[in-house]
Amino acid sequence: MRNMSDSHKHRKAIINRLAKIEGHVRAVKEMTQEGRDCNDLLIQLAAIRSAIDGCGKLILKDHLEGCLIQAVRTGDEEEVLMQLNQSIDKFIR
Amino acid sequence: MRNMSDSHKHRKAIINRLAKIEGHVRAVKEMTQEGRDCNDLLIQLAAIRSAIDGCGKLILKDHLEGCLIQAVRTGDEEEVLMQLNQSIDKFIR
Repeated sequence: MRNMSDSHKHRKAIINRLAKIEGHVRAVKEMTQEGRDCNDLLIQLAAIRSAIDGCGKLILKDHLEGCLIQAVRTGDEEEVLMQLNQSIDKFIR
Repeated sequence: MRNMSDSHKHRKAIINRLAKIEGHVRAVKEMTQEGRDCNDLLIQLAAIRSAIDGCGKLILKDHLEGCLIQAVRTGDEEEVLMQLNQSIDKFIR
């Protein structure tokens, strides 16, 4: 299994995005506790979902640059590609 | 604007789901900080996205039962329907 080594240049940006998403979910939870309008909640959830999509795309790009290319260079691409294809099947719809 | 009054019977369940999603996002952030495998991160993000979809559906159902039906009964459905249609456009894809 490959992990996110220092070859992943977007790692910090991914962590920042996840921290923002976490705060956004907490804010929507608080809006729900306050009894806020259902439509507002749905709009915020759609925004969170878009942010998750953006974060996933960044992870995927980082992975392609950081892991896959390195694996191809070392002739070790078969398992990396197989795992990546499984992730793409789950993540992209 | 309608808000989530006591007529929304799933409100507590929605808050619980959002609390779980918040914890899940935090866990993925920590996985990223620990340098965990990119594929694992993508799979977890896909699971979070599904949880958000499920939560949004519950908000929508709650809204239909709690707000829209009440608004129809009081002849006040026009604005509620218009707002709901906008939310559906944003949330469902």
